[in-house]
Amino acid sequence: MLFDTTICAPACPPGGALSIIRISGNDTFRVCKDLIRIPGQIIPLAELNANSIYAAWINDDNAPLDQVMVSIFRAPHSYTGEDSIEISCHGSPYIQKRILELLVKNGASLAKPGEFTQRAFLNGKMDLTQAEAVADLIASETQTAHRIALNQMRGGISKDFKILRERLVHLTSLIELELDFSEEDVEFAKRDDLRKIVIEILDKAKNVYTSFETGNAIRNGVPVAIIGKPNVGKSTLLNRLVNDERAIVSEIAGTTRDTVEDTIIINGIMFRFIDTAGLRETADIIENIGIRKTYQKISMATVVLLLLDARDELSCITGSVEEIRKQIKDQNKYLFLIINKSDLVTGKKINAIKKLLTTANNEFILPVSAATSYNLDKLISLLTSLLIHDQLTEDKTIISNIRHQEALKETMQHLNRVLKGLEEGLPEDLIAHDLRQAVYYLGTITGEVNTEEILDNIFKNFCIGK
Amino acid sequence: MLFDTTICAPACPPGGALSIIRISGNDTFRVCKDLIRIPGQIIPLAELNANSIYAAWINDDNAPLDQVMVSIFRAPHSYTGEDSIEISCHGSPYIQKRILELLVKNGASLAKPGEFTQRAFLNGKMDLTQAEAVADLIASETQTAHRIALNQMRGGISKDFKILRERLVHLTSLIELELDFSEEDVEFAKRDDLRKIVIEILDKAKNVYTSFETGNAIRNGVPVAIIGKPNVGKSTLLNRLVNDERAIVSEIAGTTRDTVEDTIIINGIMFRFIDTAGLRETADIIENIGIRKTYQKISMATVVLLLLDARDELSCITGSVEEIRKQIKDQNKYLFLIINKSDLVTGKKINAIKKLLTTANNEFILPVSAATSYNLDKLISLLTSLLIHDQLTEDKTIISNIRHQEALKETMQHLNRVLKGLEEGLPEDLIAHDLRQAVYYLGTITGEVNTEEILDNIFKNFCIGK
Repeated sequence: MLFDTTICAPACPPGGALSIIRISGNDTFRVCKDLIRIPGQIIPLAELNANSIYAAWINDDNAPLDQVMVSIFRAPHSYTGEDSIEISCHGSPYIQKRILELLVKNGASLAKPGEFTQRAFLNGKMDLTQAEAVADLIASETQTAHRIALNQMRGGISKDFKILRERLVHLTSLIELELDFSEEDVEFAKRDDLRKIVIEILDKAKNVYTSFETGNAIRNGVPVAIIGKPNVGKSTLLNRLVNDERAIVSEIAGTTRDTVEDTIIINGIMFRFIDTAGLRETADIIENIGIRKTYQKISMATVVLLLLDARDELSCITGSVEEIRKQIKDQNKYLFLIINKSDLVTGKKINAIKKLLTTANNEFILPVSAATSYNLDKLISLLTSLLIHDQLTEDKTIISNIRHQEALKETMQHLNRVLKGLEEGLPEDLIAHDLRQAVYYLGTITGEVNTEEILDNIFKNFCIGK
Repeated sequence: MLFDTTICAPACPPGGALSIIRISGNDTFRVCKDLIRIPGQIIPLAELNANSIYAAWINDDNAPLDQVMVSIFRAPHSYTGEDSIEISCHGSPYIQKRILELLVKNGASLAKPGEFTQRAFLNGKMDLTQAEAVADLIASETQTAHRIALNQMRGGISKDFKILRERLVHLTSLIELELDFSEEDVEFAKRDDLRKIVIEILDKAKNVYTSFETGNAIRNGVPVAIIGKPNVGKSTLLNRLVNDERAIVSEIAGTTRDTVEDTIIINGIMFRFIDTAGLRETADIIENIGIRKTYQKISMATVVLLLLDARDELSCITGSVEEIRKQIKDQNKYLFLIINKSDLVTGKKINAIKKLLTTANNEFILPVSAATSYNLDKLISLLTSLLIHDQLTEDKTIISNIRHQEALKETMQHLNRVLKGLEEGLPEDLIAHDLRQAVYYLGTITGEVNTEEILDNIFKNFCIGK
């Protein structure tokens, strides 16, 4: 056991029927001894069966505070790996507050955010990527965000690199051995083996590194900007997309939430519409699509939906499209050219527009009618097809954590230098230095290498009680 | 078992580290069978030990959804009295929603608010006052609100009336027997016994009935109006009272809540400041204390704090006080005459004001300074002394539920008619009618008599998952 203190925290927000208060640490049973009274039970708390639930009363200075369920866990078979108790009490704000006060009075400390999971990591119950995945899992609102987090919690990224890193560590130590015998010109580590393993890790790292874009979009939602001239139908389109989805989501009780921004979840992927409140307000005062605000929205978006009015002159349409194409040139964005109000023109006009706007890479063209919902299903399919490609269909590792991305970047930089060094026949000590750095950065991902700073940064973003 | 359906619901709001999904009903084990996979466990779910916790995975069509803890309960030893499972999952909105979807797919229904407790009542696990107390307990934010709810959950009001009602039922049946033998002029029920038990119930009922005012104030908070001329220091006083308290409350992590209105909790009693947002906004535009808005506030308040400016002319001060006294005449309110800014005048002036305003019943006079906090502790003591009198110091039953108050009122009316009937020698059938009515209304309190309408009204106010 690494910790002297016993910690406690509520694991549920107030406002529900029930709440869970968690206690973990060496002193768990002593801290809870006078607090928990199990009717008809004469065996002391510390000797009760592990993994059992008892109906109990919470004592508040010998007056009853609440009728609760108490779950007993014993080290090492608990979430943290320590002795642990979970009290399932009524969700009253007063009761939760009072139980915590009593626990603190008996010697427990209030847990910091993520402190239970941090202990689980430091007690060897999980590696660092798995600990981080717990926070992602809790925050996951969509099927795909959930899938990435769960894959990582089950060791996805660790599995990918653990054995490769071990082999690299082995070769590095052999090279360092050579340094000790540098006078004698021996070669303990075969350069071919080294080159092979470095290339293997580089390939793997590159693959996982590039998955970050998808992973990040899934974790935080894909930012979408709907732009276009006033009265081209932006709000109508947004309302159609958002409201259809809302109706589905609210079918399941207890999951309705206040939405800060407009989002839709399609096939498990969340699309976030950027600053749509502002969009609606300013729709009437924007005089042309060339204003700064629109460009800000575009710069934040991964997907830009440019709404065009099918009734407009062809020259006007191409003008708008050219303007936006210029704006997003060399940016890695998807541009959707949406010909709205296409129900109000002939098929010939639509074909003329299509012909005119022959799309480039990363561009799509689609005639729709926001008013009649024509082709909106196709628009939705197109949106989802951007992300549901091979990235998601395979069972491959996708990272969504910028810390992992940065560690991989550092790893790759140092491994590339190793490769170059080998090619150019640089001295062993320079190669060894880069190898050590690569081993270090790979190790920070899983937490085999960790510093207090890394840990603090990770766990401060957790919620209380986990 | 009274119910065919198996119900499920989340018992915690989203947004926490953990959430609990409850399942209850005859079909619990069948509904959960394919959903819950316990690694290394070959015994079927339905045959696992009751009151045990298992680390498990939730299966989503053979893909893992979440790593959870599963608690097994078996009828009749569960909250509802039915077979029951509690799944403690990660607090992710997606996971909660998906588990509920899978449960519904397997044949469970989403529980209505309070449905678990309603089943507990109908399965004989608790009486109706105890079931109602569960909702009050969950909602309790203060020590006193909690104490009243817990007392009721432990059978407070039921204990008071159960035996008395049984004796009344017995005597009523004897009188009804007399009706069958009305030709023969027999007297099975001694009139003296009847009078005695009726008087005993009336005494008890009156006592409990009058406790409603206190109980209601404790349950919902004591409404307090701070009124006075502009710039007399209303906002300063309110901020002092509220902020001092906030600092204390927020010491305990996890209990901070968004406050819709300004409240302070003193000695376990909540004081609610009426429409204080409005108060602050309008403080500058109120030209005198005689406007309609102030009167509306006064009419909603139990306690009126009238702030006076110690520097004002004596005639001006008496004028303000007389105006308010006239307003609240014959209303059951407490009036506090608070002489603010008393640090800016001489002791002689304060004494002159005090002498002038000799207080009547339900009135208090106190010189303070909101700016320097002078005497604010005394103000707080005075506020709490209004409620912490004999009502709370004894261990007596306090009701806070208007349903109970109304049932007691009906009971008392019919029992008073019985007494009058006995006095005036009215015929047995009239007396029997009022007795039956009294027995009926007493029975509605504990639920020995209940109708679907009564139950629907009670449980619709519960939260989901309880």
